Amino acid sequence: MRLSRYFMPTLRETPSEARIVSHRLMLRAGMIRQSSAGIYSWLPLGLRVLKNIERIVREEQDAAGCQELLMPTIQPADLWRESGRYDDYGKEMLRIADRHGRDMLFGPTNEELVTDIFRNSVKSYRDLPKLLYHIQWKFRDEVRPRFGVMRGREFLMKDSYSFDLDYEGARRAYNRMFVAYLRTFARMGLKAIPMAADTGPIGGDLSHEFIILADTGESEVFCHADYLEFDPHVGGVDYDDDLQPVVDEWTRLYAATDDKHDADAFASRAPGEKALRTRGIEVGHIFYFGAKYSEAMGATVQRADGSEAPVEMGSYGIGVSRLVGAIVEACHDDAGIVWPESVAPFRVGLINLKIDDSATTETCERLYSGLSSSGVDVLYDDTDERAGVKFATSELIGTPWQLVVGPRGVASGVVELKSRAGDVDGEIPIDSAVARFAG
Amino acid sequence: MRLSRYFMPTLRETPSEARIVSHRLMLRAGMIRQSSAGIYSWLPLGLRVLKNIERIVREEQDAAGCQELLMPTIQPADLWRESGRYDDYGKEMLRIADRHGRDMLFGPTNEELVTDIFRNSVKSYRDLPKLLYHIQWKFRDEVRPRFGVMRGREFLMKDSYSFDLDYEGARRAYNRMFVAYLRTFARMGLKAIPMAADTGPIGGDLSHEFIILADTGESEVFCHADYLEFDPHVGGVDYDDDLQPVVDEWTRLYAATDDKHDADAFASRAPGEKALRTRGIEVGHIFYFGAKYSEAMGATVQRADGSEAPVEMGSYGIGVSRLVGAIVEACHDDAGIVWPESVAPFRVGLINLKIDDSATTETCERLYSGLSSSGVDVLYDDTDERAGVKFATSELIGTPWQLVVGPRGVASGVVELKSRAGDVDGEIPIDSAVARFAG
Repeated sequence: MRLSRYFMPTLRETPSEARIVSHRLMLRAGMIRQSSAGIYSWLPLGLRVLKNIERIVREEQDAAGCQELLMPTIQPADLWRESGRYDDYGKEMLRIADRHGRDMLFGPTNEELVTDIFRNSVKSYRDLPKLLYHIQWKFRDEVRPRFGVMRGREFLMKDSYSFDLDYEGARRAYNRMFVAYLRTFARMGLKAIPMAADTGPIGGDLSHEFIILADTGESEVFCHADYLEFDPHVGGVDYDDDLQPVVDEWTRLYAATDDKHDADAFASRAPGEKALRTRGIEVGHIFYFGAKYSEAMGATVQRADGSEAPVEMGSYGIGVSRLVGAIVEACHDDAGIVWPESVAPFRVGLINLKIDDSATTETCERLYSGLSSSGVDVLYDDTDERAGVKFATSELIGTPWQLVVGPRGVASGVVELKSRAGDVDGEIPIDSAVARFAG
Repeated sequence: MRLSRYFMPTLRETPSEARIVSHRLMLRAGMIRQSSAGIYSWLPLGLRVLKNIERIVREEQDAAGCQELLMPTIQPADLWRESGRYDDYGKEMLRIADRHGRDMLFGPTNEELVTDIFRNSVKSYRDLPKLLYHIQWKFRDEVRPRFGVMRGREFLMKDSYSFDLDYEGARRAYNRMFVAYLRTFARMGLKAIPMAADTGPIGGDLSHEFIILADTGESEVFCHADYLEFDPHVGGVDYDDDLQPVVDEWTRLYAATDDKHDADAFASRAPGEKALRTRGIEVGHIFYFGAKYSEAMGATVQRADGSEAPVEMGSYGIGVSRLVGAIVEACHDDAGIVWPESVAPFRVGLINLKIDDSATTETCERLYSGLSSSGVDVLYDDTDERAGVKFATSELIGTPWQLVVGPRGVASGVVELKSRAGDVDGEIPIDSAVARFAG
């Protein structure tokens, strides 16, 4: 993409309404614009990141044997009356009457709707297990939306639902999602720690929030300091294997959210320097809830012996749009965003230091065309701004790699290659620049 | 994907509420389920088609120089008060009050919101032209939703918006979209005829609906019969060229929707046998509306001479979810759907005629693994149903290619290759089957 044509309205001033760094940087980089409180438009640069995150989430869900469907945003209130949640859910639920006066709502989550789809379609234990997910916009009418996309009202979420015949099956589904989540966040360059979370009346230990440690996090969290040394990369998983050992490894140390925190257990299991009491950002939540919805809504399957069993369920969420903000919180410096390559809006920023120098511009055009045709996402700064402005923009938007092309380098056959993270900064031959990124 | 694991709840009975063939077939094939009147969940099979269509639309928008962003579904009523449409828009607009009593709405379209984004970001003629689009769920509260996804209440739409300094620029943007639409629909195996449509108070000739001819169409349309012979494929377009000749070629014959129809002009321009009076399905609409919104909402840019000009705009819609139904209307037979390859949910249906025959099942597994690892979308029917049921399911869901594997063929080293369209039906060596589809 040529920056001269790109719709990327950056801001020089920091918008006063933005109180945390991710919100400030996303507004300044022209990634998002607010349309009303807690509701944002995703401008082209922001949408590219959102889609990269969505793609990683989708690939890992698919790999774990989860099947994608897509439920609508507007749901009938009657389904929520069946589960009893229509009255229980507070004012966060956006209630709507349609033109015929029927009660509808903008879904804040989809347990009822997916249970309805299931009960109308699946009748036999032979069709189990099933793992279904969708990635769709949700709405929660937060009383005080804040922190940009981290606590917005309209947000993109991946939610999965598991359907099993019994508790053992549900536990296997839970473990699949547990491992899929580890892999998902690791691919985004994040270390998300699974922390024991509230299970409500269901009880048991099958509820974990995946938390990124950050001072700006909304939740107070408590965990063993050794988690900081854990390698989040879980390689070569076969999802048909028993995944309990992986789950055990990641849950053997103390880690709990505020709701679930037990000060005595913390003191004994994470003594002294090992006690890490900090704040975190919840980016995922997995939760087993048994027959809560299936019993209320009559979602049963026939067992092998002909008897009827309410299906055992769990739900598994990832905050896709929230992750954009969470990654910026985790990956930035004073100059701007430092995107991990896997989610970066562009991989390479190509900077033309002197557009009225024909040799420089010719070199840039050749590199731009070579990189583009090799499938490398490149943002070419072909504007007539000063070099200082170009560097500042490039650092603000956080392209992982910069190729800097100027008359002096071109004369000696080199361009400058810099990594945004700061660990690479040197000259490379012009002729090797495309190959450096292609393939 | 293995059918034994796939969530594809087909129906044997035709649902009584479905009055047109696309609605019937999409329900029977397990592509969609209704959750309330005119609101559907897209089950995995249907979602695959929807995503293929979305991908083609996106690729052609990108190729035409249109930049993707994403606006939210919930919009503030105040923006629509600025344009005057909050009161003008009828009961199709879903009006909502949030928890603080602020008037919101579920966007039926996005002229106001995109104009707001533009006016807050673009100030100079030097930043023009701009072409922006998004693909997002919209809501129109139809009084009588019907025809399945063809006239639903919640629907997926691609809407683009052009911003230019003057009429000539707007006309160039219009022509770009005109040509992009020809290419988009042709890639889906459709012949969509651009027909002159109502321009309202704006006047001029820059409004066309793209119509697929179908007896079940909602609109009455009138066109020259020679359009049936037009080749919809528009090859090798350079969008920076003057596209007027392409547009002229496609608009020189009479073609008009009911609103714009002129019986005398029709009689003289499409005389005798050339007069085609039929019904059609609108799948796209492109529309120039000048400064209608920019004047009302103060979206101006500075000209080169320093004076302020309201920006000239147009909007360009494609009904993405409606297209799924429209393609089924155009592509089916008595047995089921006949997908064009470009949008098919799976390219190949692999049918195991005898799962308890080890040589047959071994061959199927080898083919399944070979096709999958070559990136071919294959649905492997590994269920224990009878052959007749398997063929019926395969024809219902409309996979373009069938590979039929049975004991007799395996013994002599062949499988049967059949095209759903019926033009290919014969034996091929087992060893050549993967190569037939790979690469």
